Amino acid sequence: MKLTKTLVLGSQSPRRAQFLKDLELDFKTLPLDVDETAPSELSASETAIFVSELKASALLPLLGPDEIGITSDTEVWLDNRRYGKAANYEEAFEMIQSLSGKTHVVVSGLSIIDPSAASTIQSSSSVVEVSFNDIPEWAIDHYIKTYSPFDKAGAYGIQEWIGRGFISEIKGNYNSVVGLDTAALVSFLTPYFK
Amino acid sequence: MKLTKTLVLGSQSPRRAQFLKDLELDFKTLPLDVDETAPSELSASETAIFVSELKASALLPLLGPDEIGITSDTEVWLDNRRYGKAANYEEAFEMIQSLSGKTHVVVSGLSIIDPSAASTIQSSSSVVEVSFNDIPEWAIDHYIKTYSPFDKAGAYGIQEWIGRGFISEIKGNYNSVVGLDTAALVSFLTPYFK
Repeated sequence: MKLTKTLVLGSQSPRRAQFLKDLELDFKTLPLDVDETAPSELSASETAIFVSELKASALLPLLGPDEIGITSDTEVWLDNRRYGKAANYEEAFEMIQSLSGKTHVVVSGLSIIDPSAASTIQSSSSVVEVSFNDIPEWAIDHYIKTYSPFDKAGAYGIQEWIGRGFISEIKGNYNSVVGLDTAALVSFLTPYFK
Repeated sequence: MKLTKTLVLGSQSPRRAQFLKDLELDFKTLPLDVDETAPSELSASETAIFVSELKASALLPLLGPDEIGITSDTEVWLDNRRYGKAANYEEAFEMIQSLSGKTHVVVSGLSIIDPSAASTIQSSSSVVEVSFNDIPEWAIDHYIKTYSPFDKAGAYGIQEWIGRGFISEIKGNYNSVVGLDTAALVSFLTPYFK
């Protein structure tokens, strides 16, 4: 897909970059340093959009007039608890064990930033239900030790060993769970297609 | 995952082989030559299991006593019509265009073959709803010319450019749509874990 503007990804996630490559989009990457704290009274979808727009606000002043930026936020929610990234083995083990045999929700926010548009930041959210089969303890231990999932919300990657082996079904956009709602992105980018 | 028997994949699909690698399974591959014609009175799920078991019956006599085999079949259904592989550009275009803006069903069958078990062939089926956004004609044309999806039921790959860009959501097992219900496979293989 060819665009009339230069795309800037405000994320260092290799999975988001790979999706843009899968979409045949040319882009450059800018790292952002954003405090992802959100007000606790927000709902899951509101939180994802809030954090995505925090990132968008950080990216906006870095963009030139011929650039458009994208930011995204992905989080795991179970029983009204927000799961960020696990800090260590014990936290990762506890997170994955609490997801075992249950359906949790992955909520993601996506923002498009166009410095020369009337509304400079547009956002959308995506909610996906993800169901895990029972995960035996040896599998949780093996997964954490082999794949070090400390860069992922909820301490798992749907596209990795534990996702292939133990996720029985999802309801929603698969790519959102990996880290970017690519179909929503394409809809947002349609006005910029050459 | 380490098994007490040697795994034999009765398929030449590179996507199925990659899934077994993702699951860290050792396996070997045997190509099968099977006529995939199924009785027209069968339902979608019955057809997928019928074809998977045709492949299983072809694989069974090739297996040694310390081997277990797996076969699978994946098909696309829309409005009671079974979509196999497209023979040429025109068929692929017509298939993808008919999926555009609609929800279709991907049905897959999975069979496990153990020559030394009481029931030598066990099968399961998986049904997944897949929703496409509207796909513009330039995108269908670009996809077919660039990705040559003639080895895929329904003439598309969910993990490819067209899937990333235009599939809004699914309900069911993502890996089934790619070509193998890996979570069901792990459940089937549990008795063989070392």
